[in-house]
Amino acid sequence: MELRTMILGHFLVISLALNAGLLYRDYYYNGNKPKSQNVFSFNTNNECKNASNRDAHVAKRAILETQALAEVIDLDHGDPTMYEQYWQQMGDKTTVVIPGWKFISYFSDVNNLCWFLEPEFANAIIRLHKLVGNAVTEDRYIVVGTGSTHLFQAVLYAVSPTNASEPINVVSAAPFYSSYPLITDFLKSGLYKWGGDAREFKKNKPYIELVTSPNNPDGLSREPVVNQNHGILIHDLAYYWPQYTSISSSPADHDIMLFTVSKSTGHAGTRLGWAIVKNQEIAKKMTEYIVLSTIGVSKESQLRAAKILQVLADTHEHRNNFKENEAFFDHSYNLMARRWKQLRDAVEKSKLFSLPEFIHGKCAFSGRTFASQPAFAWLKCEGETEDCESFLRHHKILTRSGKHFGESPQYVRISILPRDEIFDQFTDRLSGINFS
Amino acid sequence: MELRTMILGHFLVISLALNAGLLYRDYYYNGNKPKSQNVFSFNTNNECKNASNRDAHVAKRAILETQALAEVIDLDHGDPTMYEQYWQQMGDKTTVVIPGWKFISYFSDVNNLCWFLEPEFANAIIRLHKLVGNAVTEDRYIVVGTGSTHLFQAVLYAVSPTNASEPINVVSAAPFYSSYPLITDFLKSGLYKWGGDAREFKKNKPYIELVTSPNNPDGLSREPVVNQNHGILIHDLAYYWPQYTSISSSPADHDIMLFTVSKSTGHAGTRLGWAIVKNQEIAKKMTEYIVLSTIGVSKESQLRAAKILQVLADTHEHRNNFKENEAFFDHSYNLMARRWKQLRDAVEKSKLFSLPEFIHGKCAFSGRTFASQPAFAWLKCEGETEDCESFLRHHKILTRSGKHFGESPQYVRISILPRDEIFDQFTDRLSGINFS
Repeated sequence: MELRTMILGHFLVISLALNAGLLYRDYYYNGNKPKSQNVFSFNTNNECKNASNRDAHVAKRAILETQALAEVIDLDHGDPTMYEQYWQQMGDKTTVVIPGWKFISYFSDVNNLCWFLEPEFANAIIRLHKLVGNAVTEDRYIVVGTGSTHLFQAVLYAVSPTNASEPINVVSAAPFYSSYPLITDFLKSGLYKWGGDAREFKKNKPYIELVTSPNNPDGLSREPVVNQNHGILIHDLAYYWPQYTSISSSPADHDIMLFTVSKSTGHAGTRLGWAIVKNQEIAKKMTEYIVLSTIGVSKESQLRAAKILQVLADTHEHRNNFKENEAFFDHSYNLMARRWKQLRDAVEKSKLFSLPEFIHGKCAFSGRTFASQPAFAWLKCEGETEDCESFLRHHKILTRSGKHFGESPQYVRISILPRDEIFDQFTDRLSGINFS
Repeated sequence: MELRTMILGHFLVISLALNAGLLYRDYYYNGNKPKSQNVFSFNTNNECKNASNRDAHVAKRAILETQALAEVIDLDHGDPTMYEQYWQQMGDKTTVVIPGWKFISYFSDVNNLCWFLEPEFANAIIRLHKLVGNAVTEDRYIVVGTGSTHLFQAVLYAVSPTNASEPINVVSAAPFYSSYPLITDFLKSGLYKWGGDAREFKKNKPYIELVTSPNNPDGLSREPVVNQNHGILIHDLAYYWPQYTSISSSPADHDIMLFTVSKSTGHAGTRLGWAIVKNQEIAKKMTEYIVLSTIGVSKESQLRAAKILQVLADTHEHRNNFKENEAFFDHSYNLMARRWKQLRDAVEKSKLFSLPEFIHGKCAFSGRTFASQPAFAWLKCEGETEDCESFLRHHKILTRSGKHFGESPQYVRISILPRDEIFDQFTDRLSGINFS
């Protein structure tokens, strides 16, 4: 499919997702004609021209969301609003105060290869990985980015051959994260290009393989699949946290590992990710990419994330200072466990769908033995339904079609991370769906 | 020059700039052998592997900077630390407090074309432009980015033809901002490529022209120079503020205008820029770029910048609430005026250099009539000195060679924005340079 069409298609899905809610809310609850507006990329009204009052907007949105619960449920994207309640309950423990004179300079630490990395954030990352045991950090370079999306592109730039006659292939085993092909190809770079499903990659050429584990969208643990010479592996470990999956007794120790605040603590609006890199030259070149693209990363985000990560670690290492069930990973594990049970019950009741089964694993962090409970559900429409996304959209549940992940449209990816009310409404509606 | 070599050359200059200071500090003040470390991109020690204690580091750096004043003076990059003193004097008026539950969601305002733009930041931008009168905002779209660097790339993506047989040329009149060629070409995009000096561009093909006004590096006001059909103009107005140049009685009203917090308030570490765009399709596609590259922009940065910009406007609109000389643009104007006088006196004394002359203009904002006092000095080595950057480096003053700006190496660009002590040391040393 032509790239421009793919990108437009991707955004159309997202646009419909968010827009549908507002259209229905306005139409049914305000008695107005539906506005011809798409809230993502295709606004036709005077958006952006006058900013709304923030507090009134938030209150209005909360009211509308509650009213709209009978209408469109948007689970297309992984907006992690599930985590809001925990951080609200934590009160002012994670409040940060930033005076006006801070962060004037471009530079954070001129002694550091990654000179825009705030030392407090680096410290918090190292402490967190030591606590959870999910990644080696000693003798490794840390590179910070505006989300792991930004760092993914930094790695592509860093590892692509500079003087090759053709772009290096970037592959990942289907179902792969839907954004990988879009991000890889949207600038038509001469350095790298999307090479499709890693299982289909038979060319005896250099390649970059993305190994996402746990995988987005299906939650399965992953290993490299190409296993040829001249391959460079990028391990996207965004979901390798103990609320989603068991942590191995050996910390992950790959050459390039990507993490994001969005899926660890839930602060997606902070726009912060980090890479743990073995090779100095790669870390340097990734830093170069971040400098050329954005001259560094928000220091406010780094300061705030440092505070949040430190308190998160405190909830585990200094439990006496916190209430029962405030240990972040325990709280989040319980939340995910409850949601997955609720979802499996709904799927069982409906008898029209299936979900992946996950092997039980012993978690070295928590001591629990449990089956993975991923951030997304990879739902399959059984029987004769060929287009699961359309089928569910007909029932006003917005999901992302399997075709965007290199898989059959019989599958959809559904976010498990919305607010409680939305998730409850979703499982209620799912369980009531029958062929109609 | 091969691109990789250009990029390495660019970073080598920056690396040497920062490195030299540390090398000399260690060598002369610590009695140690010089470490073989380059602090930017070529670290060979264990940087990034263990983060340093922030407070001790800042204190140490302040001491070292004072000690190092007799040594290397780095004015290669425009780190705007000059502004620190003003924001320190403002005390807690611009302090922001951010609770832990904020900014979980990816979304800021789903009613907005630019759905990751925080309404408070949009409001602050609109108020500031209305106060200063330097740009039209009514009936315009605002797109936010991680610095204007990020937005420059967003515009290139947004306006490049999608199905052209070759990349569109991106040009700017020399001397142009040294980063433009690097940023345009570092990914070898199939959509756009650097086309060099706009004055040399004679091809009858589509093109994108960057008009930076006031210009970086020479501070001159600029108009488009290509003036052919099929041209798209990007106006980079990073320095179009009343501390640097007089503001016209008609607000700037170009199709695409870029601004940055870094050079307006001085908060370079915040990594925030904004674009004011007439055309909705362009604004949409710029938003698409920001989404694909970083899924939005730090909300913490936007919240903080909103507060800072609002207080800045208050210092002008509610002067009674502030001390004398606290009105931001007055304070900064006076600071720049003092520095340029000091610089011109030093150049006069040395008799080896020259600076641009600027026409006096009436500022509609302040009512003053004055000659521009830009953020950078475009210094020329007169006489037989062919390589001004080398000549000044010999005198331990680090600058950026004119060759990086598409101009003769007889020119260098020097930052006027360092801290007071550094700037005073620079003008002292400059005035004492003679042929030796």
